[in-house]
Amino acid sequence: MAHIELNNELPGIRGLMAYRPETEGPLNALAEVLLRGENSLSRGERELIATYVSYLNDCFFCQNVHGALAGHYLDCNIRHIDQIKENFQQADLSPKMKALLAIAASVQKGGKYVTAEQIDHARSAGVTDTELHDTVLIAAAFCMFNRYVDGLGTWAPQDRQFYVDRAPQRALDGYQSSVYK
Amino acid sequence: MAHIELNNELPGIRGLMAYRPETEGPLNALAEVLLRGENSLSRGERELIATYVSYLNDCFFCQNVHGALAGHYLDCNIRHIDQIKENFQQADLSPKMKALLAIAASVQKGGKYVTAEQIDHARSAGVTDTELHDTVLIAAAFCMFNRYVDGLGTWAPQDRQFYVDRAPQRALDGYQSSVYK
Repeated sequence: MAHIELNNELPGIRGLMAYRPETEGPLNALAEVLLRGENSLSRGERELIATYVSYLNDCFFCQNVHGALAGHYLDCNIRHIDQIKENFQQADLSPKMKALLAIAASVQKGGKYVTAEQIDHARSAGVTDTELHDTVLIAAAFCMFNRYVDGLGTWAPQDRQFYVDRAPQRALDGYQSSVYK
Repeated sequence: MAHIELNNELPGIRGLMAYRPETEGPLNALAEVLLRGENSLSRGERELIATYVSYLNDCFFCQNVHGALAGHYLDCNIRHIDQIKENFQQADLSPKMKALLAIAASVQKGGKYVTAEQIDHARSAGVTDTELHDTVLIAAAFCMFNRYVDGLGTWAPQDRQFYVDRAPQRALDGYQSSVYK
């Protein structure tokens, strides 16, 4: 049960967004542009960054919502996503994606953990400045979303298949309408 | 120097926002509603929560921007704000504000650090559900803003008086126009 009375039974961030529509708007607009807007990083790659940071922050709801979406876009199952979360360096990912996940992991610890060496390494793997910007902001944004969801003690469906089953429809709907679905 | 080429000389988050207007919009809209929108917490109280979290995250730019604004709204000088940051439990603050800063400090560590006891204690000090919601989200949002600013290695004016001098105008302008000032 959440720490506050939400007056709805929606799980995770959806319950919070329905409770406080004043903040729901900017939060969904941010998720929409970061994760779905026009970008040289694919939607699957961006969802994977979101998933990994949510895993590092131990946020069950977010890592399952976004892990299922990453699996949907990248056409791989949730077991493969789990393997990436557990050890992305050993996973079947491009050097570019590994460089971005390493930067995301530093951001999760704190902004100052990102090193010039990580940035140089990412550039040598073909990462652009805008991709660096967006990776840092996606990772930072999920340090917010994860804290919001868990800091208010929201509930989450425990059956992971729930998230997998919902992912295709969420991929169609996007984030800006998420409260009402 | 920032980790990426921003093509502007604006400090802190302002340089990032000018670089990427697609994400600037939702970020400023979020700051505007959280820190300045209609609320039973005063603007000064909300800026103080933002300042304290930015201090805990060791983000020089954010803790000075928002510390100067907190001082402006609360009519106290930057030394007083510093004393609150260093030991808010001993500061001249209401029990309600101390309860909220304690929750903000837990959010800064991670969402799951917020305890039912902290929530109960805040309620007994007169905190409402909406104030709990907004405190958690302000604290979470600054875990994002701080990581964004430092994760991309932005520069910040080192003279703290710079921030104090700018605060009255920023208080008039709000956040939604911040890039262009």
